[in-house]
Amino acid sequence: MKNNCIFCAIGAGEIPSFKIYEDELVLAYLDINPFSFGHTLVIPKEHSRGILDTSDEMLGEIIKRVKKVASHIKKTLPCDGFNILQNNGEAAGQSVHHIHFHIIPRMNGDELAFHNSPGDMAELDKLAKKLAIKN
Amino acid sequence: MKNNCIFCAIGAGEIPSFKIYEDELVLAYLDINPFSFGHTLVIPKEHSRGILDTSDEMLGEIIKRVKKVASHIKKTLPCDGFNILQNNGEAAGQSVHHIHFHIIPRMNGDELAFHNSPGDMAELDKLAKKLAIKN
Repeated sequence: MKNNCIFCAIGAGEIPSFKIYEDELVLAYLDINPFSFGHTLVIPKEHSRGILDTSDEMLGEIIKRVKKVASHIKKTLPCDGFNILQNNGEAAGQSVHHIHFHIIPRMNGDELAFHNSPGDMAELDKLAKKLAIKN
Repeated sequence: MKNNCIFCAIGAGEIPSFKIYEDELVLAYLDINPFSFGHTLVIPKEHSRGILDTSDEMLGEIIKRVKKVASHIKKTLPCDGFNILQNNGEAAGQSVHHIHFHIIPRMNGDELAFHNSPGDMAELDKLAKKLAIKN
């Protein structure tokens, strides 16, 4: 298996998938451990680990396909909304180290969500200054 | 306020934000109700509601900036990984109807996650066929 990577093998058609879209650059297929009905993955066929080591050009190509596939899912399924999720690193829940974008269809009233909490304004101000990027 | 949209006003600098990056097309700033320490939003200054009504060209520009900002956050903060999240529709948790990409820094062992469960293979096969897009 190339790169010893299951998504490279899926992209090359060496391992079967529940494919819903394919072109020369990407493959889209259903996640077999879905967050919700219709949960789909979009991957480039070319291997990269996460967003930080994927070229800007390839990211532009992938995000176009994510939009295309999500539009199709929204028209085709019962779907009130959807999340696009892309995880980088095991700490973020990335279990396969080949970049993939999740499309997660959502229904009104489902309880699939991150939980957040109000921030401390002074801490946020300090942090914004720490993170500020000079052009 | 243009479009009666708070993110248009933030993008235009009419409402202050905890800004960490800005250029002619986008603004990146801290979410004031963070999922995690360093949780950042990247928005285009031009109004669109979600991914489906944002141009392919603009999406390409935004995702480049998401990568740039995430790279900076990862180098600057304690951060073992990060999620990129983009919500479409209230059902998906979108509370401001101006497209935004979340960058959510993650630490090993934090408990911020969607929960999933194994899918039924026959149902998945059926669904993949239903969703299959012809080129």
